[in-house]
Amino acid sequence: MKLQEIANIIGTEFSGEDVEITGMNTLKDATENELSFVSNAKYVKDIAISNAAAIIVDEKTKEYVPDGCVALVVDNPYWSMAILSKSFAPLIEDDELPHAEIGEGSKVSEKAEIANGAKIGKNCTILAHVYIGAEAVIGDNTIIYPNVTVYRDCMIGSDCIIHSNTAIGADGFGFATNKLGQHKKIYQNGNVVIEDDVEIGSNVSVDRAVFGSTLIKTGVRIDNLVQIGHNCEIGEYSVFVAQSGSAGSTKMGRNVVVGGQSAFAGHLNIAPFSTFAARSGITNDIKESGKTFGGFPLLEQRTWLKLQVKIARLLK
Amino acid sequence: MKLQEIANIIGTEFSGEDVEITGMNTLKDATENELSFVSNAKYVKDIAISNAAAIIVDEKTKEYVPDGCVALVVDNPYWSMAILSKSFAPLIEDDELPHAEIGEGSKVSEKAEIANGAKIGKNCTILAHVYIGAEAVIGDNTIIYPNVTVYRDCMIGSDCIIHSNTAIGADGFGFATNKLGQHKKIYQNGNVVIEDDVEIGSNVSVDRAVFGSTLIKTGVRIDNLVQIGHNCEIGEYSVFVAQSGSAGSTKMGRNVVVGGQSAFAGHLNIAPFSTFAARSGITNDIKESGKTFGGFPLLEQRTWLKLQVKIARLLK
Amino acid sequence: MKLQEIANIIGTEFSGEDVEITGMNTLKDATENELSFVSNAKYVKDIAISNAAAIIVDEKTKEYVPDGCVALVVDNPYWSMAILSKSFAPLIEDDELPHAEIGEGSKVSEKAEIANGAKIGKNCTILAHVYIGAEAVIGDNTIIYPNVTVYRDCMIGSDCIIHSNTAIGADGFGFATNKLGQHKKIYQNGNVVIEDDVEIGSNVSVDRAVFGSTLIKTGVRIDNLVQIGHNCEIGEYSVFVAQSGSAGSTKMGRNVVVGGQSAFAGHLNIAPFSTFAARSGITNDIKESGKTFGGFPLLEQRTWLKLQVKIARLLK
Repeated sequence: MKLQEIANIIGTEFSGEDVEITGMNTLKDATENELSFVSNAKYVKDIAISNAAAIIVDEKTKEYVPDGCVALVVDNPYWSMAILSKSFAPLIEDDELPHAEIGEGSKVSEKAEIANGAKIGKNCTILAHVYIGAEAVIGDNTIIYPNVTVYRDCMIGSDCIIHSNTAIGADGFGFATNKLGQHKKIYQNGNVVIEDDVEIGSNVSVDRAVFGSTLIKTGVRIDNLVQIGHNCEIGEYSVFVAQSGSAGSTKMGRNVVVGGQSAFAGHLNIAPFSTFAARSGITNDIKESGKTFGGFPLLEQRTWLKLQVKIARLLK
Repeated sequence: MKLQEIANIIGTEFSGEDVEITGMNTLKDATENELSFVSNAKYVKDIAISNAAAIIVDEKTKEYVPDGCVALVVDNPYWSMAILSKSFAPLIEDDELPHAEIGEGSKVSEKAEIANGAKIGKNCTILAHVYIGAEAVIGDNTIIYPNVTVYRDCMIGSDCIIHSNTAIGADGFGFATNKLGQHKKIYQNGNVVIEDDVEIGSNVSVDRAVFGSTLIKTGVRIDNLVQIGHNCEIGEYSVFVAQSGSAGSTKMGRNVVVGGQSAFAGHLNIAPFSTFAARSGITNDIKESGKTFGGFPLLEQRTWLKLQVKIARLLK
Repeated sequence: MKLQEIANIIGTEFSGEDVEITGMNTLKDATENELSFVSNAKYVKDIAISNAAAIIVDEKTKEYVPDGCVALVVDNPYWSMAILSKSFAPLIEDDELPHAEIGEGSKVSEKAEIANGAKIGKNCTILAHVYIGAEAVIGDNTIIYPNVTVYRDCMIGSDCIIHSNTAIGADGFGFATNKLGQHKKIYQNGNVVIEDDVEIGSNVSVDRAVFGSTLIKTGVRIDNLVQIGHNCEIGEYSVFVAQSGSAGSTKMGRNVVVGGQSAFAGHLNIAPFSTFAARSGITNDIKESGKTFGGFPLLEQRTWLKLQVKIARLLK
């Protein structure tokens, strides 16, 4: 899309070359054909290091945009970004894509739906009522049980098992809100990447990224009814017990163990080999690896246990 | 159904006219062709204002039933109501209903099932393995992702997005229990009404009402794995983060924000612009709007934070 | 499978007869044609009472294996058991099984998939996009709403209702972990047995047993988004409110009531007629019946309420 068209959509003008824009991205990750935005003062510092062709800013922030990068000045950059995100959303299904490719030895139920552009590897088992979206890619030997939905562009590795009624790649929970309290959807144009040897239980939700990928690394085990927010990264061999979840953009090292009904706030960094007892509530980074935590607010598990003894004494 | 037939089903007699009864409802909402019941002393006062043709009561309560309204006297009115609820339940599917109507420009997968009597508006996208029940109505431009189930009689507005594996209109959790501890299903003969511009995540459960409607108003955003109980009303532009939920009959004003894993007890009234931090447990009405709460038992969020500091001091 | 083949798979040798092994089981439940294992010191005492033909043990434990029972000595018996579990897993679907049997008066959607070997009783309603697995058995008058998955070998009784997008019999969350932190799946070769008059909500996960059965007894009511772990037993007329769950192998008596978002640890015994308030966290056996509990750590509900008053006083 030409920059002029973008400016028209969000009702602004610009000076500079009317270049072709191929997508939107964060300031850090945007390439020279992409558009970015500043919606929060803490990202102003990223303007200087951005390769973006153009950046949506407000009046206060426009001065930070360097020469050679177009400033698109609007009242509410986050809202404008939300409006534009729709323009970059691909079609849900696309008849012009080639028919799906199914690898040798794979067994695909006639009652599954494999959208055009999808690729399924060798020796997979795809059961009835599974949906594999456009340009999704599945590795070899992977089993997908009935009523699983894999949204478009998602990638699942080899030797994976996905249990029934799980949704891989539904939209992350993203929207801008205006002063009237109305919401505008931010289209989630990223995807989900699941590496090899991952097993995911039933009724799990793994959301697609807004930009880039939500990433589930090799050997992860996810139990039933778990929520993985957009842009999370789950380290190798990590374990999520039933009904636990993570808000968006939290990154975990390898072999993190998450007890049942535990939950992470968004944008955290969790050290490898961390263990969280059932119903932990994690709201801060975990920097030292190998420790065990519990409670909400979170404490080291042995401290939490000690605290419960002290609390119980209040009854006397 | 004639009143005599109803009396026979629940094993009682009555004096009065053998009128035609078209349905059951609460005392307050019952019309003059409907049946109602009193199962709880706190509703006795509603008898006087009810338009019901007949009311199921026990021996103690029958004296409150005014002239012109038939009293059906039984030992356990709630149990009798449960028995009768089945008689008023419509067929799950009905071959005699006309074929579904699909609006211009709508794309419905051949692998979706649109039951007879359903109506789908213009320019909708209904993907594979979606089920739209009898007499359900979908507005224009609405997208329903794979493996979503919309039960019969439910209504979804225009410009909505419903993500995969979500169930709209499954039965609310209702049953009567007798002295032996056995349960009798209360058929949920209401529906779900979702207004325009609503987005609902994956693996969400929005239950149908026992009478009337469960209501999700314009602009609401619901994340994944959320539970909305029967007869709830969710105000405009409210936001439910993942794994939160509400028991039945709770009514919320507009722009209520519900943090992840939070939950509401049933039958509450929540002021508009209330915000609940993650894992809030709300068991009482919120009367003043614009406040932020947290914890279980619930406190104002800043009070909850202060309390956590005090609790942590117990360790010293 | 011959014992020699089993020894080859797990890289060990044995002395004794090369008998035919038909399955794996716990020490207590293994028959004389089955293989068992000792992975935890607390089960060593069960070796003496086991009828197993052979037992996988480590060097330290082999001395407890009596004459007439073959000891298969390995470094990590649990890991070896996990490897072998795959050998005993049946095919997901089996073209050689006879076509499904559908009882008189049952209405099965053409868009449902009933796998070979399944049996459906009389007067059932099986809606679109339901999957009934191989050799699954459904009783009479049972209603299964769209997008439900019933995995192979599971049994559902008569007069049951299963709501949309629920998964019955997905694999329990079982794996062995080695010193490198890698996981090996333990195939869950048991099933789920649901007795008569059970209603299960939408988006529920009831996992199949690793050996034997996960059991949901007569008259149970399960609300939406509930997790029932492998090998649980839920007593007659018990009630699980939305978003509650139980880890594996917990056994409950009849009429246990579980509030919303409550959860049980695994391997517990819960007395009949126990009631748990919303968000209870149950980590110990409940031995006395008829009591009401709440909180996490769990207390009697009235004690928990008293404690909250004491805690609130800390603010003064």
